[in-house]
Amino acid sequence: MTELELDNPTTVDEHVSRLVEMLKTADAEAVDAYLDKLDSTVLTAVLSRFTAEQRQALFEQTDKVHGARYLHELPDVQTVSAVEKLPAQVAATLLEELPNSEQADIVGHLSSAKQESIYSEMPQENAEAVRELVKYADDEAGGLMVVRYVAVHQDSSVRDIIENLQTNAEKYSDFAVQYIYVVDSDGVLRGVLPLRSLVLASANSKARQLMIGSPLTVDVHAKLLELHEFFEEHRFVGVPVVDAEKRLLGVLRRGDLEEAISNKYAQDYLKTQGIVNEELRSMPLAVRSRRRLAWLSINIFLNLTAASVVAAYQETLAQVIALAVFLPIISDMSGCSGNQAVAVSMRELSLGLVGPKEVFRVWMKEVSVGLINGFCLGVFISLLATFWQGNAWLGMVVGIAMMVNTIIAVSIGGTLPLIMKRLNLDPALASGPILTTVTDMCGFFLVLGSATLILDKLV
Amino acid sequence: MTELELDNPTTVDEHVSRLVEMLKTADAEAVDAYLDKLDSTVLTAVLSRFTAEQRQALFEQTDKVHGARYLHELPDVQTVSAVEKLPAQVAATLLEELPNSEQADIVGHLSSAKQESIYSEMPQENAEAVRELVKYADDEAGGLMVVRYVAVHQDSSVRDIIENLQTNAEKYSDFAVQYIYVVDSDGVLRGVLPLRSLVLASANSKARQLMIGSPLTVDVHAKLLELHEFFEEHRFVGVPVVDAEKRLLGVLRRGDLEEAISNKYAQDYLKTQGIVNEELRSMPLAVRSRRRLAWLSINIFLNLTAASVVAAYQETLAQVIALAVFLPIISDMSGCSGNQAVAVSMRELSLGLVGPKEVFRVWMKEVSVGLINGFCLGVFISLLATFWQGNAWLGMVVGIAMMVNTIIAVSIGGTLPLIMKRLNLDPALASGPILTTVTDMCGFFLVLGSATLILDKLV
Repeated sequence: MTELELDNPTTVDEHVSRLVEMLKTADAEAVDAYLDKLDSTVLTAVLSRFTAEQRQALFEQTDKVHGARYLHELPDVQTVSAVEKLPAQVAATLLEELPNSEQADIVGHLSSAKQESIYSEMPQENAEAVRELVKYADDEAGGLMVVRYVAVHQDSSVRDIIENLQTNAEKYSDFAVQYIYVVDSDGVLRGVLPLRSLVLASANSKARQLMIGSPLTVDVHAKLLELHEFFEEHRFVGVPVVDAEKRLLGVLRRGDLEEAISNKYAQDYLKTQGIVNEELRSMPLAVRSRRRLAWLSINIFLNLTAASVVAAYQETLAQVIALAVFLPIISDMSGCSGNQAVAVSMRELSLGLVGPKEVFRVWMKEVSVGLINGFCLGVFISLLATFWQGNAWLGMVVGIAMMVNTIIAVSIGGTLPLIMKRLNLDPALASGPILTTVTDMCGFFLVLGSATLILDKLV
Repeated sequence: MTELELDNPTTVDEHVSRLVEMLKTADAEAVDAYLDKLDSTVLTAVLSRFTAEQRQALFEQTDKVHGARYLHELPDVQTVSAVEKLPAQVAATLLEELPNSEQADIVGHLSSAKQESIYSEMPQENAEAVRELVKYADDEAGGLMVVRYVAVHQDSSVRDIIENLQTNAEKYSDFAVQYIYVVDSDGVLRGVLPLRSLVLASANSKARQLMIGSPLTVDVHAKLLELHEFFEEHRFVGVPVVDAEKRLLGVLRRGDLEEAISNKYAQDYLKTQGIVNEELRSMPLAVRSRRRLAWLSINIFLNLTAASVVAAYQETLAQVIALAVFLPIISDMSGCSGNQAVAVSMRELSLGLVGPKEVFRVWMKEVSVGLINGFCLGVFISLLATFWQGNAWLGMVVGIAMMVNTIIAVSIGGTLPLIMKRLNLDPALASGPILTTVTDMCGFFLVLGSATLILDKLV
């Protein structure tokens, strides 16, 4: 493999097809050399487009340092399935090259059989550490903390500490060492020692004399919003994570927390659009199609429920066919209005600006917007219908339906995420379909029901 | 104001009404004492619910330290409007309590008249620094970097540096000092000096001898995705930001970058649902209603365009009224399918897994999903229509329309975000409405057009 052979490939797909050829000849070094030359962004895109089999071939041929890098660069959703397919021994070797917290992120999402077989291939100490970390949820401090930090006993002298730093210089080199954590014999966090103050201290002083006592900490079970508020209030880069007995368990870095929040927002958006499990287009067609279809199937049944209202009023509709033009408009506009309210509630919930119990406050706020916007939309559509068909009664029917249904839509849209949150359901996932179904049913009923009542004025 | 008077208020609204009373008596200290007792989360919620006038009264009464804290705790979208309403002199005093980068975030979003009047009230040095920072966009390294870092000349000795740290201990205390940046006389970054190595060095060594040379940097104009990839590849807490001449301009911390990304995701989700400017329910009703209505107005016109297809085929519809039941179903299901494709494209774009030019690749990937899912949905709805009305021709009309329209919807949904990205339009904002309008028109046309062709089989 010479430089020349690379001759400036331009697209990701070209890289992929070259690499697939190279993988067939099983020249692992050439593959690694090729991948080493790629930008990190391109590398991620290339790795994500391999098939499961190609990826497995890559991981089984490459050395552990490269393999660990590829695992790290793969989009998260593919990392788990890649590791699942690897022999436990290969997986364990690659994982050990990653920080414990990253190992736990991956292992925690594997099947439990795979987890056990990987643990059995790991050095016991590492397996124990990962097992501990896997217990924590992805959205709490324990699931996000790193366990690479420097802790010293409170009776250590500055000389001891500096010696420790010197001895372990290499090990600490990719730690984020800015503070040294000071603990007592029970592992209880007693203080933090900024590296800075170590610089200025005499060799014989003890950690307990130099440390800043009663340091701020977060509980290992603290959730994203609470943690975000902590970092908003305190301009720290990291915070020690402790258990109920104040024993030091890890360090939560602000970057990792914010990344978890950003992932949560991205997943929430995907879920509102019916992508429940993250999908990449490089995944197998059957998986993509099946997952999307699962969501569509639920929606088609909800749609049928709503459409059954139209079916029930076919006779009215047959007599005033102009109504059929307005049904999709009222359905779609109510969906728009309601989804605006859903979006504002989701956002206020995630900023902590509204509590899940404040349903009444949110409802009042939404009703007032709904009154104004419903009035405007209703008058507009009513005038349009009146002049188009020359029938003010028709205008009244669709105008009032639009107005009332806008109020219904924002009421449901605004309060539903709060209610779902209280019921411990995922507001991102279910708010949309429930909203659409209910507002469609109400909208169709309002138009067709009132038209039936005054049918003689409309025909 | 005694402790007793607080008697355990429970809801945010109760805090607000107490504080509003207190603000009337203009007892600033009592207000600050009350707010000091609140949790940071509750404080943010309380501040966000004041009216603009109440907030202004608070800022004008309080001292600058408290005022700066309230500014910092307010949701971003309210900070800007709060500062806009303050007298320039009060605003300048409060802003100066915040880090320069945070000042720039706020000032950069003010009206230009307000910006100038605030600059004129600031000490010149601070005004210059903020003016520089305001130039950078919110989504590039320059707009996210902090300018609080410790830089030393490459010829400084360890003794000088330690003296510098001692002298400025207080100033540096809320800096994230982990590295000291080493520059030459032109301000060009020459190396970084881990605090750790300072601990171990002799007093006479020079920075240039101890520093790690050729440090990794990011360009001041680097964008979010590129920056995210940088931190994915390198486990740093921060990276120096430089201009084209490699002069050190600031430090980008991973936490700040990830927070910006998470904000972008949150804003993108709000935009897809028609909340174009972030809305909090504590904003004035007129603003909330007007902004939402702007979006709804665009949508109602798009809806009318789509409904005009139904209007054009009223005669067909009048003869086969059962079709009216299926129109909203086909419209809604196509919207669902198309929005799934939009969501996957948005996600792949933001992860850098697909380039904006790969329209054809995405289209092919979507067509294959569309064929399968369109077939399944089409067969289902076709059987349903056939048995319900006892007419296989009707089943064929709605089935084929569902199938074809699903393929159209995923094709448009998948490619539209890429095309908009290439045209420098915001894919989050416009993809949804364009998709819905086109798929509605196509869906209505497919059902009613084909029904018209075989009308004699349907009646």
